[in-house]
Amino acid sequence: MYDINAYNQMMQKLKGGIIVSCQSKEGDPTHCPEFMAAFAKSAEIGGAAGIRANSVVDIEAIKKVTDLPVIGIWKRHWEDAWWNIMITPTFADCKELADAGADIIAIETTGRKRPNNEDVKELVDRVRNELNVPVMADCHDMEDAMRTNADIIAPTLSGVGTTEDEYTPPWALIEKMVKEGGRPVIAEGHFWEPPYVERGFGLGVHAIVIGSAITRPWMITERFVQFSPQGKAKS
Amino acid sequence: MYDINAYNQMMQKLKGGIIVSCQSKEGDPTHCPEFMAAFAKSAEIGGAAGIRANSVVDIEAIKKVTDLPVIGIWKRHWEDAWWNIMITPTFADCKELADAGADIIAIETTGRKRPNNEDVKELVDRVRNELNVPVMADCHDMEDAMRTNADIIAPTLSGVGTTEDEYTPPWALIEKMVKEGGRPVIAEGHFWEPPYVERGFGLGVHAIVIGSAITRPWMITERFVQFSPQGKAKS
Repeated sequence: MYDINAYNQMMQKLKGGIIVSCQSKEGDPTHCPEFMAAFAKSAEIGGAAGIRANSVVDIEAIKKVTDLPVIGIWKRHWEDAWWNIMITPTFADCKELADAGADIIAIETTGRKRPNNEDVKELVDRVRNELNVPVMADCHDMEDAMRTNADIIAPTLSGVGTTEDEYTPPWALIEKMVKEGGRPVIAEGHFWEPPYVERGFGLGVHAIVIGSAITRPWMITERFVQFSPQGKAKS
Repeated sequence: MYDINAYNQMMQKLKGGIIVSCQSKEGDPTHCPEFMAAFAKSAEIGGAAGIRANSVVDIEAIKKVTDLPVIGIWKRHWEDAWWNIMITPTFADCKELADAGADIIAIETTGRKRPNNEDVKELVDRVRNELNVPVMADCHDMEDAMRTNADIIAPTLSGVGTTEDEYTPPWALIEKMVKEGGRPVIAEGHFWEPPYVERGFGLGVHAIVIGSAITRPWMITERFVQFSPQGKAKS
């Protein structure tokens, strides 16, 4: 089990703060660890309380430029009916993230069958007890939030694979998580407008993760273009 | 004089579109030409109609990754009462930008004394006639807009060096430029909210430049942080 005092100190640093998710996909012009590190350093300069990052190489690059706590994930391809990615599916992945310096490991806690049939509740327990790293549960719904003993719960996967409005946070789920989750909630997903931050904290979340709205310039461009005559002509 | 047909074709491509300004300053974690090129490519993927960029090295890097028209500038240090930078102050700077492939050159057309005493009206004429590149006038007010024969006018410098709200475009000046400027207006400055794009085009501008809100991750972070408890505690 990890050092509870160190955990509490880290959570105190994250409390009321913005965590910036610095991720890119194959094919993105910014897809390389040096870019992710530059985004993470930019986030720190802008006042971020933490970073969320994907993969060992990105976390290693980010750890070199900032002392902010890093939530580590590893998105793996996993063909499946509703989403062909699984967030940190195996214990082996978690082990590598911990070795790379992840301060928290985020694991998808959906009920989906995992690549090697690991049980997600056991996986979370092993990460907490054997790797000594706290776990954030990336959830699709309230059932996912209550499925494991994760330290932190998050509505990260709400709306993924659906046609839900991509520019609006899942308010109802966030509220339910705060009221019934019995653990700190870190809100994540669709926080595109700065006033949403105020609303999220008003609901009682511990911290808020913002990703694409800060670190995916092509998506930010697209959002502005939608309001231009050229954008309207295309849609 | 530049090819008027080519100019008209380029202006047609920019019409009703978003131009993404990809700039960084010494000290920014993203300060290198490769990052600016990645931002420019991201902008293209997101549907941008053009790019604005600072300095020869950045423009050269950007020209390698995109065919979008590039508005070139060169910000030079210039100690002065109200702003210690001057945008593309000399003919020599313009010549280098043209050689680097700038499709439009933006020049500050304020009445400020220039480093080598060049007259700004003559400077604009020389760029148009000798370098065969159209000129965009970066203006502080309406007087700057009418000071030269620039092809395009822009309210770029409105609010620079003042305490004006940095998140709101200079609507009054934009409107005045469209009504009285007698030339296409490219709006620029403080377009932080996507709906501002709609409002800007509603006023009759030809295109809109968006910079920091897309390509300065530390400033975007700062804006979100302002709405968080940590941000409020600091201010």
